[in-house]
This record gives sequence, structure tokens and C-alpha cells, in this order.
Amino acid sequence: MRAGATTMHYTPRIMELPDTIAIVGVGLLGGSIAAAAKSRKPTAHVVGIGRNHKRLAQAASLGLLDSFHTDVSGVAQADTIVVCTPVDRISEDVRATAAVAKPGAVITDVGSVKGTIVSELADLAAAGTFVGSHPMAGSEKTGFEHADAGLFVGAKCVICATDETPSESINSIAGFWGSLGAVVAHLSADEHDRIVAAISHLPHAVAVALAMTPTEDALPFAATGFADTTRIAKGNADLWTAILTANRAALLASIDQFETRLGALRAAVESDPAAIRQLLAAAATRPGP
Amino acid sequence: MRAGATTMHYTPRIMELPDTIAIVGVGLLGGSIAAAAKSRKPTAHVVGIGRNHKRLAQAASLGLLDSFHTDVSGVAQADTIVVCTPVDRISEDVRATAAVAKPGAVITDVGSVKGTIVSELADLAAAGTFVGSHPMAGSEKTGFEHADAGLFVGAKCVICATDETPSESINSIAGFWGSLGAVVAHLSADEHDRIVAAISHLPHAVAVALAMTPTEDALPFAATGFADTTRIAKGNADLWTAILTANRAALLASIDQFETRLGALRAAVESDPAAIRQLLAAAATRPGP
Repeated sequence: MRAGATTMHYTPRIMELPDTIAIVGVGLLGGSIAAAAKSRKPTAHVVGIGRNHKRLAQAASLGLLDSFHTDVSGVAQADTIVVCTPVDRISEDVRATAAVAKPGAVITDVGSVKGTIVSELADLAAAGTFVGSHPMAGSEKTGFEHADAGLFVGAKCVICATDETPSESINSIAGFWGSLGAVVAHLSADEHDRIVAAISHLPHAVAVALAMTPTEDALPFAATGFADTTRIAKGNADLWTAILTANRAALLASIDQFETRLGALRAAVESDPAAIRQLLAAAATRPGP
Repeated sequence: MRAGATTMHYTPRIMELPDTIAIVGVGLLGGSIAAAAKSRKPTAHVVGIGRNHKRLAQAASLGLLDSFHTDVSGVAQADTIVVCTPVDRISEDVRATAAVAKPGAVITDVGSVKGTIVSELADLAAAGTFVGSHPMAGSEKTGFEHADAGLFVGAKCVICATDETPSESINSIAGFWGSLGAVVAHLSADEHDRIVAAISHLPHAVAVALAMTPTEDALPFAATGFADTTRIAKGNADLWTAILTANRAALLASIDQFETRLGALRAAVESDPAAIRQLLAAAATRPGP
């Protein structure tokens, strides 16, 4: 138990959004950032970078992008750059972006695992060029067609700077997310990864194992309890494979902690109803989200 | 895997509801049976049996009961008797009820575990006096104040007769649930208990262990994934302790099968991303409820 070990700073300050914002990877999250920025500052220029010219043109026709490029050099005019590619591509995409960004531009990302990214990009973090982020908002849906200008309102956004990151760069990115409506928290990358392992990646792994356990003849009898506990197992297998792989160490530790809890409950079921009741009562009164 | 081993008979026949129905234990389920019966046959006489005179009077004042008694002898006029007490009290309550029921009356129950009950009441099942049921409907709510006349519409109701149970008694109870809108399935008590262990009791145990795993400092970051997977852990600790205890053997087997699935995923996370992807894809395409 490390209760209290986490230092959290919520940033209430709302910064004016920059004049030019680049989104690298225009999917649900990238599209929602574009929509949120345009709705809050209609004069902002949002440039999209992606691989697929036709998809980018569609996003532009929906009003999400003011311009778009299939080459990363398209970020050259941007003040703030948000890399929204899959978690296993973020480090190289940030580095490629940094090579062509203008002086003073700050790059962030939306990766849901931060340890590897922040450590691989430590030099850019120290230079103030990169500040890692994880906006904890999303959807089962994918694609900019489901972009939502309100996606970040009230959502937590964790910022993982390093001890070397200049505070101006941290404030710039904190202000950016705050302006989109997010509640900003500052954590170290390791703390972040331990926390998301417990509250997101472990539940995903458990939901997958749970969905696979009943025999075929049992599934027609499943009702809301089974549906609720296994819903997240329907998530995109490619994205989640990248996430679970990227957070391997923290996830394995979290699975082990879960196994200990389930083992205690199993032992109680075997021989100690009073202990079952204690465990169930403790779980029922845990503060939820 | 025992796919195909389960014989299921859905009963489309709708029987007219009996003239007098007794509910022993007037809570959410008992109250909903009363409401459903009264809405389908307003002339039916519904008698409630319970411990608390004041609560029974309240249920009567809401129109759920036509008469009520704090003594089980109140069931004497009933054609169909439904015992809705907690799962660890059902066997003795059915036996007490059978002792005072009129000849030809058929008793059923709503217990969510059937093996012990059906085996303890095998003599009454053979005599045609008792047919075990499990209407798979419910709510987080408790108390007849939340009674819902539509609770059983479209819900599965499993009937667990024995080889000795006369078909007239089985048809009487199947027709009763069918008249309240339920879809009836016939299973042996062992098959039923194995199935509900996998699709209901295991998810409950897993949700409890999952809710207890994150440290306190992680909980503020929990979002919909964690909320969905742990929601059922908020259920009533006393009721669920009785359920998990009553289904001990099937639940332990189900926990072991789940541990094997989670162990395979854990091994994949340790060293084999391609295997993670396979497991996630398989879980994502499982037919859901």
C-alpha cells in the first residue's frame, strides 16, 4: 500500500489556446482534440498529419482540420503538437515530429502507458520539447467520425513530466488540456503506469479471462452481471495488445495482487462464510469512480 | 467443454394463473411476482407470508397483497406457493410450507443455487409438491417498494425438476412463470449450478477481488472500465455470502477455470504479444448475452 505517496497538483489555470495546433494521427482522440480546440477558439488553425490522404480530407470536410499533410513536416508552423498514434509508435513519431517542429513548440502525446515513452524521450523532456500526457477519456468507438468536442470535459488528464522538464513546457501542456476542459493531475510516469495497471489494464485482462471461462452452453443464460464485467473485453484487440505489452511490468504486478485477493476469497469460499462476508462488505464500500 | 450436453425445453404454453397464489417472503422478487400476477389476473387472490406484520401491511396497502399472515399456515388456500426467502432458508421454508399446504398445491422457489435445495427436498419433488425454480431477473434494489410487474418479461427462468417429479407439477410451475412473461428452460440442478457459477457467481467473486486490488491513491483515476467491471461487487453482502456459500463446489471449479484463463493471458503478457492478441481477439468475439 502506497496510499498518500502520490503528489497530485490540479491545475485550475485556463490558458488561451495556441494559434496553431498540430494533430499527428487523426482518429477518435485526435479528432476530438481538434473539435474541442475549434469549438473553444474558432480562429485556431488545426493541422492534421496522417498516412491516408483521403481520410485526412474527410476530417477536413467535417471541419475538424484547417489543413492536412501526409508528411510530418506539416507540423512546422504549430505551437502545440499532439501525437495521437498507437502507444507502440508514439516515441518514434514524437522524435520525428521534434526534428521538424519550430523552436519553442511543445509536443505532447495521448499514450495510455507512459514509462517507456517518457524514458525514451528523456532528452526531449529535458529540452522542454516534450511533455507526456494521458487524457483519460475515450470510447468504444474509433475514428474521427465519432469525434466529440466535449470528450475531455471533466476527464482526468495525467501529465508525466520529468525532474528536468522546464516548468514553462509543463504549464503549456497543462494549460492546453485545462483549456479543453480536462482536470489535470501530475504524476511520475512510474506512478501513472502503476495506477492505470490497477484501474484499467488489470480490469481489461480480467474481463478477457472472464469472457472466456463459461462453456458455450452457459452463455445464453448470461445476464447484466456478466455483460457488465466483460464489456471492456470487446475492445480493439490490436490497440489493447499494444497497451498491455507496453505496461508489462506494472500489469504483471497488478495481476499478482489481484490473484492474491481472489485467492483469499477462494479460501473463504472453501471454508469460512464469515470471511466471505467480510471481503464482500469491504469491496462493497470501496469508494468508486 | 460440455457444449450440447444441456437439454433445454422452452415452454411457449401460457397457462391461466391460479385463483390463489401465496408468496412466502415479500421482498423485491416476491413483490414483483405479486405485481405481475395481479396485473395479468386482477381477480387472483395473492396472500403474503412474512415475519414483519407492518411491512406486510405496507405491501398490502400498495395493492400487492390481498391478505397477509405472519404464520406459514396462511398458505393453506393457495394453489401455487412461491418461496422467496434467502437461499440458505429456502429448504426449511418449503418444508414448513408443504406441511400446511392444501392437497394438490405446488410449491416453487426463486433460489439462485439449486443443488442443495433440490436434493434436500427430493421427497417433495417426487411427490409433485415441490418444483425448484430460478427466475434470472433481479435488481440492485431490494424491498417490495421496487416491485416491478414487468420484471420477468423476457427473463429466463430455469426449472430444476428431478427425474421423479410428476410432469403435471413441472407443467404447472413452467406455466406459472410463462404466464408472468418468463422464458422457461429446464436444466438439472447440477447443470444449473455449474452455469450460474460461470456466468454469475464467478463474475461476482472476480468483481470483489478487482474492487479490492487498486491502492487508495489509484481509485480517483478509475473510469468507466473499472466501474463496469466492479459494479456487481456493490451487491448485498449477506445475500451474496449465502449464494457463494451455497454454490461452493461449482464456484470453486469455476474460479479454477478462470485462474487457468488468466494464467494463460499472464504468460502471454510476460513474453508473447502475438498470443495476447489471439486471446483478446477470441474474447472480443465471444457471443454475449
